[in-house]
Amino acid sequence: MREFELIGKAKELFRVERDDVIVGIDDDCALVDVGTRLALTTDCLHEKTDFPKGIKPEEIGHLALAINLSDLASCGAKPLFFLYTITLSDYWIEYFERILKGMKNLADKYGVAVVGGDTDFGDELHISGFAIGKAERFVGRDGAKVGDKICVTGLLGKAQLSLEQLMNGFSRYEIAYPDSLFKPEPRVEEGLRIAKHANSMTDISDSLAISLHQIAKRSGVGIKIYEEKIPLDHLTKFVDYEKALELFLYSGGDYELVFTSKKSEYIEIGEVIEDEGVWIVRRDGRVKEVEFRGYAHL
Amino acid sequence: MREFELIGKAKELFRVERDDVIVGIDDDCALVDVGTRLALTTDCLHEKTDFPKGIKPEEIGHLALAINLSDLASCGAKPLFFLYTITLSDYWIEYFERILKGMKNLADKYGVAVVGGDTDFGDELHISGFAIGKAERFVGRDGAKVGDKICVTGLLGKAQLSLEQLMNGFSRYEIAYPDSLFKPEPRVEEGLRIAKHANSMTDISDSLAISLHQIAKRSGVGIKIYEEKIPLDHLTKFVDYEKALELFLYSGGDYELVFTSKKSEYIEIGEVIEDEGVWIVRRDGRVKEVEFRGYAHL
Repeated sequence: MREFELIGKAKELFRVERDDVIVGIDDDCALVDVGTRLALTTDCLHEKTDFPKGIKPEEIGHLALAINLSDLASCGAKPLFFLYTITLSDYWIEYFERILKGMKNLADKYGVAVVGGDTDFGDELHISGFAIGKAERFVGRDGAKVGDKICVTGLLGKAQLSLEQLMNGFSRYEIAYPDSLFKPEPRVEEGLRIAKHANSMTDISDSLAISLHQIAKRSGVGIKIYEEKIPLDHLTKFVDYEKALELFLYSGGDYELVFTSKKSEYIEIGEVIEDEGVWIVRRDGRVKEVEFRGYAHL
Repeated sequence: MREFELIGKAKELFRVERDDVIVGIDDDCALVDVGTRLALTTDCLHEKTDFPKGIKPEEIGHLALAINLSDLASCGAKPLFFLYTITLSDYWIEYFERILKGMKNLADKYGVAVVGGDTDFGDELHISGFAIGKAERFVGRDGAKVGDKICVTGLLGKAQLSLEQLMNGFSRYEIAYPDSLFKPEPRVEEGLRIAKHANSMTDISDSLAISLHQIAKRSGVGIKIYEEKIPLDHLTKFVDYEKALELFLYSGGDYELVFTSKKSEYIEIGEVIEDEGVWIVRRDGRVKEVEFRGYAHL
């Protein structure tokens, strides 16, 4: 995937050796030391690729903050401050305040102060967010240990299922999980709780498959998950079994957390193994590779 | 100006009362206290409004960082960390590394660690930057005192003059001040130096006029500048006198700093007065109002 190639080049270029940079450009968040340890992250959204049809202005503001809070949560950082840049196209100018109100509602919920913004105008609505959190115990992608359980904080595939329903002509009031698609909840409290014991963690923005590959590769371990442990009832109500499994493994947008720990919490789906790669044990016992792919964009 | 109306609404909405937020969304940078006092800022650029024709990829990366370092400098903060989001259109994908190299060269010059990035794809090249600095003595726009001198760190109008020449068919090798337009230098060291004594400061991104109005309004004072003190030789070589004065007062993009202080340093052009408003004393003694306007975008 082209995105990951480019990210690799950026990591190469911006590698630093500094006492105050503990984790650089290589994880969900950077970790810096300014006397206190701070987690820093940034993420952007733009209209054509990230906003499903029918999204409300408040949900756009919510989403712009939520994806950044999700990154902080995935490192076990408590969110403190947020800044944004917004480029408004003509259509969105009148919705500017409503976008910001959605952002503020979510900020208030988690005690985040929005302390900076840059506003300009262009052809497409574009929002970048930048969040700062305090990391008592920073959990990266690179600490998974052989024998750890693999757990996820919630059900996966709901956002993509809903998106596909929307693209097939359903309205936002008819799709299965509108909140997963339009207003995903960042797992802030879960992240803080999990950080006390997890060895590695990341959020699932692109897909579970990609997140597992990232943990496995960065930790120098392998991962095995079990089909029989994967909850799919929330999807098989709407699609057939194979499609449901596909959605669970390879779709993004739910912003749940996946982590590895000696302690099993939330939904346990597998374990960390010594042999490299990411594998799924099918119900019939066959072991198949989990591919490095996902789709989170429209 | 529409931009300032919207910014006003954002300031209203995101006003906070928190011990750890010393300056909120209301200045060039926010100032937060996490044990250490940090200045936070964000600024974005996109192709159609911010990149002059013929700009090199390295200069785009330079510019994205420079405008954020300029904000930090204008508060007297020492830059530490930088994060970016970049949306690449098809045309720019092959220049991705060159864009980042321009960013890195400037980062290295001022000891800035680039610790985060988000890369995606869209119809227009778009870069948002977020910078974090350490503020020993934070200088905002609101501290100007009656009797302060008004000073600027360098000659103004060069970027806009060069832009107009470019739009009139000159090549980048023929325009008067290519570096002012394509590769402006953020006044990082000047900002740190000035912060030791200045009562107020801001950078000149939109125009000197707008910056002076912001300082006057936020400080509850007036400002008087003197035409005879304004250096225009660098412009009158290329345009007539009135046009030169117009460029000096009302054009942006040079990223010089303007500050008020009991101490005169760099180029002194006027003083802080009690009566509200921003005024220019013309050579013939007439006093005219400096309008609230500027142009920094293409």
